[in-house]
Amino acid sequence: MLELGGARLVLTHDMLVEGVHFLASDPPGDVAWKLVAVNLSDLAAKGARPVGALLGYSLGESDWDSAFARGLREVLEAFGVPLLGGDTVLMPEGRAFGLTAIGEAQERVPSRSGAESGDGLWVTGTIGDAMLGHALLAEGRHGPASLIAAYRRPQPRLSEGAALAPVVHAMMDVSDGLLLDALRMAEASGCSVDVDSASLPFSADFDAAGGDRRAALAWGDDYELLFAAPPGFEPPVPATQVGRFGPPGEPLLRLDGAPVPPSERLGWEHR
Amino acid sequence: MLELGGARLVLTHDMLVEGVHFLASDPPGDVAWKLVAVNLSDLAAKGARPVGALLGYSLGESDWDSAFARGLREVLEAFGVPLLGGDTVLMPEGRAFGLTAIGEAQERVPSRSGAESGDGLWVTGTIGDAMLGHALLAEGRHGPASLIAAYRRPQPRLSEGAALAPVVHAMMDVSDGLLLDALRMAEASGCSVDVDSASLPFSADFDAAGGDRRAALAWGDDYELLFAAPPGFEPPVPATQVGRFGPPGEPLLRLDGAPVPPSERLGWEHR
Repeated sequence: MLELGGARLVLTHDMLVEGVHFLASDPPGDVAWKLVAVNLSDLAAKGARPVGALLGYSLGESDWDSAFARGLREVLEAFGVPLLGGDTVLMPEGRAFGLTAIGEAQERVPSRSGAESGDGLWVTGTIGDAMLGHALLAEGRHGPASLIAAYRRPQPRLSEGAALAPVVHAMMDVSDGLLLDALRMAEASGCSVDVDSASLPFSADFDAAGGDRRAALAWGDDYELLFAAPPGFEPPVPATQVGRFGPPGEPLLRLDGAPVPPSERLGWEHR
Repeated sequence: MLELGGARLVLTHDMLVEGVHFLASDPPGDVAWKLVAVNLSDLAAKGARPVGALLGYSLGESDWDSAFARGLREVLEAFGVPLLGGDTVLMPEGRAFGLTAIGEAQERVPSRSGAESGDGLWVTGTIGDAMLGHALLAEGRHGPASLIAAYRRPQPRLSEGAALAPVVHAMMDVSDGLLLDALRMAEASGCSVDVDSASLPFSADFDAAGGDRRAALAWGDDYELLFAAPPGFEPPVPATQVGRFGPPGEPLLRLDGAPVPPSERLGWEHR
């Protein structure tokens, strides 16, 4: 957060690397979409309105670059974000893209460290759709377009974030898995957290396609908003209470009251 | 340029790619310095005061990363720029870094397109030192530390840019070679430009080390400020008039009144 002449700025920079965050065979327009969407999701978690973006782009094959440029235009138009500049480079091997998004914050800018013992843990939308979309694509199976779209063209929760920012205690986006991100919020806030698996929101398409609910808790890419709010909270946007914060103490994270075994993968740790 | 609340923001994003903009064998602290300095130089050309930076960083060998981090701290402290955030990634091959610099602009933000026929072409400081520093390093020769420093640790002309911004017609930094950048300013302004080679400023170290003055015109990395100002201009900072803008018409660029043959390399075209 940067205060400058009456303006309150939120800035975010995320990179996508070929072979790590996307494959050369992925549709270029979707790579562009995701690059922008993940950054806008960071702004959403701060309740900020996007006002511009800068792109760092490594050139490749010209058809790929053109398709990327079309996807970039689509996503920037979809969310009303002007491209203000950037840099274009040639890389000897592989490719990497960086995007900086600039947002204008409201009076209150929630952090991930404001949760209090007794607060509820909430999440917007549904989780797991992106995981299932990824699995369908990886296995070449057919499936609902909503699941593919959730993976390839995630929707940053900008309006939800703007509505929640003034009233929540803590907020972040679910990018690395709900369990891992809930643990991070608890750690940053000096609390513990207990996630209630029965209350987790899944889409009808997720269940119809036979999605694994436990696996979805440890998979990222949801880009929903995870937030802490006091008891009795009535959310101004569709959201579900999925747990509760407690006092500090080991274990910091419980699932249905029981410690999560350290051997279990909580989410996407390294990206 | 982005107006937000009462603030006028200038944003810039430049990348450095291993094998293109730096070598794995370069001192990591100098790579960090240059990454920041080239971006601050862009702010200087807009007369903007740096207020923060975001880093996109691809991890490598841990000693290298530590030395980079030390150099990063040095350059950010030298110019009083807080690091606001960023992203860290692993890349399968090679490395690339991106830096976003945020600046607060003054009332007037010069562009490269404001030069007028009759204006003088001016440059701050001296040119060619970075070229010679690079040559000394590449050939393993000894030479003045000032030349090595000019190449490895360029100084963005922030105070000069701030002083010039309110009073010049057009401004940019010399990053790709004085001739090429002068041509770009002329093109953007709908003018021609004639560079006077006899008036070009070279350092005593440059001449003592036998630097090639013609070659220095087509070599980048000077990070001095190039600007257009009306006849009779008295610069508020040390600067030298090195040419004059004329009416549009071919050739757009002359050196000592003569067209520059198209076969001649003007500067660093692709980076």
